[in-house]
Amino acid sequence: MDPADLHLLPASQAALALRQGLLGSEQLVAACLARARGEEATGKELAFLDPEHALAQARAADARRLAGEHTGPLHGVPVAVEDVFDTADMPTENGSVLCAGRTPARDAAVVARLRASGAVILGKTSTAEFGADGLPQAAGPEAVPGGRSGASAAAVAAGLAPLALGHQSAGGTICGAALSGVVGFKPTHGLVSRHGMLTLSRTLDHVGLLSRTIDDLALLAAELAGHDERDPDTRPRARVPFAEVASEDPPIAPRLAFVPTAHGERVDAETREAFEELLGHLGDHAEALELLPSAAAAWGWHRTILEAETAASLDREWEGRERMSGALRARLERGRQLPALEYQRALAAIPRLRESFAELFEQRYDAILTFSTPGAAVEGAASPDDPVFAAPWTLCGMPAVTLPLLQAVDGAFIGVQLVGPCGGDARLLRTARWLSARASSG
Amino acid sequence: MDPADLHLLPASQAALALRQGLLGSEQLVAACLARARGEEATGKELAFLDPEHALAQARAADARRLAGEHTGPLHGVPVAVEDVFDTADMPTENGSVLCAGRTPARDAAVVARLRASGAVILGKTSTAEFGADGLPQAAGPEAVPGGRSGASAAAVAAGLAPLALGHQSAGGTICGAALSGVVGFKPTHGLVSRHGMLTLSRTLDHVGLLSRTIDDLALLAAELAGHDERDPDTRPRARVPFAEVASEDPPIAPRLAFVPTAHGERVDAETREAFEELLGHLGDHAEALELLPSAAAAWGWHRTILEAETAASLDREWEGRERMSGALRARLERGRQLPALEYQRALAAIPRLRESFAELFEQRYDAILTFSTPGAAVEGAASPDDPVFAAPWTLCGMPAVTLPLLQAVDGAFIGVQLVGPCGGDARLLRTARWLSARASSG
Repeated sequence: MDPADLHLLPASQAALALRQGLLGSEQLVAACLARARGEEATGKELAFLDPEHALAQARAADARRLAGEHTGPLHGVPVAVEDVFDTADMPTENGSVLCAGRTPARDAAVVARLRASGAVILGKTSTAEFGADGLPQAAGPEAVPGGRSGASAAAVAAGLAPLALGHQSAGGTICGAALSGVVGFKPTHGLVSRHGMLTLSRTLDHVGLLSRTIDDLALLAAELAGHDERDPDTRPRARVPFAEVASEDPPIAPRLAFVPTAHGERVDAETREAFEELLGHLGDHAEALELLPSAAAAWGWHRTILEAETAASLDREWEGRERMSGALRARLERGRQLPALEYQRALAAIPRLRESFAELFEQRYDAILTFSTPGAAVEGAASPDDPVFAAPWTLCGMPAVTLPLLQAVDGAFIGVQLVGPCGGDARLLRTARWLSARASSG
Repeated sequence: MDPADLHLLPASQAALALRQGLLGSEQLVAACLARARGEEATGKELAFLDPEHALAQARAADARRLAGEHTGPLHGVPVAVEDVFDTADMPTENGSVLCAGRTPARDAAVVARLRASGAVILGKTSTAEFGADGLPQAAGPEAVPGGRSGASAAAVAAGLAPLALGHQSAGGTICGAALSGVVGFKPTHGLVSRHGMLTLSRTLDHVGLLSRTIDDLALLAAELAGHDERDPDTRPRARVPFAEVASEDPPIAPRLAFVPTAHGERVDAETREAFEELLGHLGDHAEALELLPSAAAAWGWHRTILEAETAASLDREWEGRERMSGALRARLERGRQLPALEYQRALAAIPRLRESFAELFEQRYDAILTFSTPGAAVEGAASPDDPVFAAPWTLCGMPAVTLPLLQAVDGAFIGVQLVGPCGGDARLLRTARWLSARASSG
């Protein structure tokens, strides 16, 4: 591989080369740092970067290998982490001036897991104000496509790191990845601990995974998944064999349910055409399906829960509301006014909705196929990062992945979203790999 | 034993005699049924009793034993079940005319467990309107002491059954048992499944256990505890060795923290004097302790959660509010008006409060000793079934037991409540046995 392309090396290949000593972590991290300074980056992907600290972690990894010490699955691999995850060695400012200079005492659970598996924490990617979906990035709306976890996706797209962590309470990871042309993955609710991640909504918050290949997602997911008693929504369960399942071929060709949802009319013409072409290509493997009428309320339930829980999560910060954006203040104000009854009705609707989706999977389909965003990123304009196609699965905690399989005429990527049943994470990645191969064939 | 006293046989002794064939279940159940008809019972303890059906279950148990089939730990033992637990073979009316004639298709999880361990479901005990704490019993306020789960406690006191199931969302089981002079036990939240029990409040609802001896509580608790995926608050965990731990002597004499709470002034003079005498008797084993000022808000949090969750749980029943009592309607009306923010603040306070109690146990004390009710039952008057001394532990999900150790001048029982740390259920029963022995000595 051309050393000039080192930053494009997928994490799984880099990890192998690093463990075998064919590549030094310092060399790889230096290549990523060069990209952060290069013209491909906007310079706004990162909220915090200390190149010397990143290099020091890389050198320590190289030294561990040379000393014959244990090297984990992510040994020496740089990972960018959204600035909503606590890091003991870097500030964590949650995209708000109210958290300026905040330096947590401990790593978030996922950051600790990354370090334990040998990863280098490259730096912190920008986030929206308090990571809130649909609000402009702290760095400015023009900064990076996708808002929310868009900076993590943009960092991966620009080669600043092969892997990144984002979050999703509405559509953060899926929309960010789709607009940046990378793969993004929101695992089943409760599969990955959120301890030490900024809390907006216990019901809706998820850790998001970003990379350039599905194999890399599987590698990263295997390291992050697991029970953590500090996140009461994680459960003790058997290890998910992500890499094994994701890399095998499906025993029979998957069947996909193309679900445009109740909001398909918001999709722009170019995206619709691209999907029609994809569906034509898939033939019998995909079947158009309308959601049950009962699912039409999902968007309202999602909004109620997000606003009510965000208002409670940022209850203490409400004192400093003069230093919040008007958009966040208005959202919190709405959440603070919601009745407990409406909030509980929305919570109570989730199990029934999840059940109705579960039946779909049991009866016929391996995955739901749908849009990731209403359109592709438009150069110089605010991105169409509307979470409308991510919200129902986020609400139900179902795993979702977006793949950069389609392109607009100007070359901008159009994401294709696959959604699986709760707990079907590894098989969803297997289906994604099948779809990816199928879409690029013929 | 005098056959005329059969109805007073503790469940653990009855179970042994039944398994050995020294006693027939039909004989035991007949003795209990005779009590239900006798003058010791008010006739209002039971919401449903079909003597023939109870006897048929007993005969079937006797036949199983004679045929050499497996006999469970509760083989042939009659258990009375509060009418908030679904029973497939008896109506379950939840104390409301809105549920008149309701016959569930399936047993509640605890009822199924009772049957699996060989018990005879004697009948259904009365409950308050929708089991709601603090509301009059469907059978009328004068019916039985204690309101709420009072009828289950009264049934045990009157010898209708050696064991009974009640429930507790505020103080139901503890107050009912205290006022009836029996032992009552509310295990740790999540230890016993509530599937098939009327839901008022997921956060506060507990299954309650009633009997005449601590050994019987341990026997019953061992049969009821366990994971049930249909109750998301139960967790897979190791079996709790109730009988073993409860029957052993504490390795060192327990230390008790006497906590009158912020509401000690509501206790009547007679009860206060009885407690002073008990404390004098305990000497160095008990120490008076004031709750942290932060705990003073616990009662408000409990009320907020109970009212908000009850309003949501009975959302569908709200349509039939014209057929509810004014008291229940007013309570639901309040719950329907509560803001989601206030509700979530109350929920968020629980872990911190529980933590502050946990420190108390870790540092010095085996159990908290406190009042069960503000006073003893008064003949012919509405009972002082104020849940004020039960609410904080119900809120935190901590295990609590009440023992009929004290008596008023007129002979009415005064309950003594012991509270342990979450998960310390078996050891709490061990401490209760120690206290019981200690109080009756000297």
